[in-house]
Amino acid sequence: VTSGQGPLLLMTPGPTRVPDRVLAAGALPMIHHRTDEFSREVGSVVSGLGPLFGTASPVLPVHATGRGGTEAAIANLFSAGDEIAACCNGKFGAMWAAHAEAYGLTVHRMATDWSQDIDADELDRLLTRHPAVRAVTVTCTDTSTGVCNDVAAVARIGRAHGALVMVDGVSAVGGTPFAFDEWGVDVAVTASQKCLMSAPGLAFVALSERAWAAHERSRLPRRYWDFSEIRRSVTAARPNTPGTPPVTVMRQVAEAIRMINDEGLDVVWARHEAMAQAVRRATARLGLSLQATGLRRFAPTVTAIAAPPGISPETIRDGLKARGILVAGGLGTFEATCFRVGHMGDIRMVDVDATMTALADILGGLGTGRPASAEPAAR
Amino acid sequence: VTSGQGPLLLMTPGPTRVPDRVLAAGALPMIHHRTDEFSREVGSVVSGLGPLFGTASPVLPVHATGRGGTEAAIANLFSAGDEIAACCNGKFGAMWAAHAEAYGLTVHRMATDWSQDIDADELDRLLTRHPAVRAVTVTCTDTSTGVCNDVAAVARIGRAHGALVMVDGVSAVGGTPFAFDEWGVDVAVTASQKCLMSAPGLAFVALSERAWAAHERSRLPRRYWDFSEIRRSVTAARPNTPGTPPVTVMRQVAEAIRMINDEGLDVVWARHEAMAQAVRRATARLGLSLQATGLRRFAPTVTAIAAPPGISPETIRDGLKARGILVAGGLGTFEATCFRVGHMGDIRMVDVDATMTALADILGGLGTGRPASAEPAAR
Repeated sequence: VTSGQGPLLLMTPGPTRVPDRVLAAGALPMIHHRTDEFSREVGSVVSGLGPLFGTASPVLPVHATGRGGTEAAIANLFSAGDEIAACCNGKFGAMWAAHAEAYGLTVHRMATDWSQDIDADELDRLLTRHPAVRAVTVTCTDTSTGVCNDVAAVARIGRAHGALVMVDGVSAVGGTPFAFDEWGVDVAVTASQKCLMSAPGLAFVALSERAWAAHERSRLPRRYWDFSEIRRSVTAARPNTPGTPPVTVMRQVAEAIRMINDEGLDVVWARHEAMAQAVRRATARLGLSLQATGLRRFAPTVTAIAAPPGISPETIRDGLKARGILVAGGLGTFEATCFRVGHMGDIRMVDVDATMTALADILGGLGTGRPASAEPAAR
Repeated sequence: VTSGQGPLLLMTPGPTRVPDRVLAAGALPMIHHRTDEFSREVGSVVSGLGPLFGTASPVLPVHATGRGGTEAAIANLFSAGDEIAACCNGKFGAMWAAHAEAYGLTVHRMATDWSQDIDADELDRLLTRHPAVRAVTVTCTDTSTGVCNDVAAVARIGRAHGALVMVDGVSAVGGTPFAFDEWGVDVAVTASQKCLMSAPGLAFVALSERAWAAHERSRLPRRYWDFSEIRRSVTAARPNTPGTPPVTVMRQVAEAIRMINDEGLDVVWARHEAMAQAVRRATARLGLSLQATGLRRFAPTVTAIAAPPGISPETIRDGLKARGILVAGGLGTFEATCFRVGHMGDIRMVDVDATMTALADILGGLGTGRPASAEPAAR
């Protein structure tokens, strides 16, 4: 399904466009996973992801998508009956809670208003009321709302109460400044198909020493994604993986990290922030509103925009698709009311401009919002 | 690491060579997973795998490698304390047992001699002694030994005792005649990187109605790979997946199934059997022995060959590598004594001939075995 203009421009919050260099890495003849060549790629991914997470610890690959990475974190750190507090201001915030309950944990949900950032004081009060809570879960940038939660503040409160701090960084790491060690985060998860510009199929998990101590005590069953076994493999003199890994995705991520380093991580982060600001400026200029009306901190990687009164988000998505651009529909609470523009990974300002100009054109045609100007809408 | 002659010929029991058509499918511009285009691919994979498994039921994709697929089968069908019987005549046979114990099941191991096929009478006696056993696990073709266990016979005994029959078909399905429905198998697992000629990263599971009934009773924790959720998604009017799937591998497998159908499934099976016979004939002609000396039924997809006395398997593997051919080392019990030649998926008789001729050349140079003839060794 294309617009007759070639493949759709993926202005989606993942999978995102895979750049030619990364597609080419995935199209190389297959190699066996027990070779020096593949071992070097594993080593380069494990060490190369450190700066993106902001950690000096090795980052573990999990042979699953991001959702599997977060479930693996629960299965590796807890035992049935353990208590956690889950910051639920978005679909992926709430997913931590559902994972934990599936594994028999007791979950205290907070911040269930998807329109707001996490309130650190509310978390402080909850952890005071529930001193047995062993971990706080939070999403850094939740693609369902466009929030960028203040992970540093959440971590400060969590640590003060002796709780582990577990962060879904799936749509954040690589596109958003992330300081795992400095903020005192204990677990952070990301995935290959967002800011890492690769196909889906690999997750990555960073773990603190406190997280490893919890892992030692954990009694939940797991084998495929057991963190000890993964650590043993990837930190071996000849880095490898437990069993056969998604070889192609690993090679793609290795190439994507080289691209990020070629551009410069600071430059990449600044590019994401500039794109996000441009999208929000254009949104305001077009007379549209953000879906989550109470946000204080915005994701550099994705923006959830409310459809104007009387217009279905599907109408806007169809209009964009007819112009060769794919944006995502709403999720959960916001399913019927918004569309979501991803601006992460290989996406550039020229793509943002094209998207917001097309949006202006569609709104003009619908007699809604302000008319499209001749200038790019995003600038 | 190549031989200076381009990429190594992958005569390995997975990952196997990915043919150009399948590489190209994986190198297409990324598409979003919530599109009609991707939905059609999911539908074609789910229905297209039926004939390969020999089942009329939909085959479920699991977003993991084959090892994850087998662990998912345990997590989806049992509760802690359930008893199973595990046929352990190879590394992957034993893996079922280890998965089950990690999830708190009680495992009765049998057939731990890697040199032999499963003895159906031994299974019958074990199931008579342990009437509470709820399932029998077995590997169809175990790449560690080159056996092709008689799954039909195992299934007959298992069913007679009211036990589920769970088969690791990872290196079998697509390359070996497999008759899930006819044999009365309850669970069979395969993976993308073997006979399906694609990158690793996707597993596939077929399930009988009895397996679904066990799933309903199961209390083990799982969410990422919960079979109910996967079935709901892939059998929807517009087939999809729970969460983001490994999009690229799914497209590769769809293309690989089209290739198998172009060749004809019976022709593909016959090609595998012919290659296996050619490898065994050449092995005998070179004065070499199979590693598993007591086998009655041989895998069409892989052959484990004992290194000759006084020669390390590594010497042979290095010699083949210098000639541009990669074969695998031994595993587990047979780690130090054999090398393993894969002949599955996109591998053709010309590749088998090249491999066995190179092997003859190496043995001649070592003054071991019989000298290489001018004719291809495999014919």
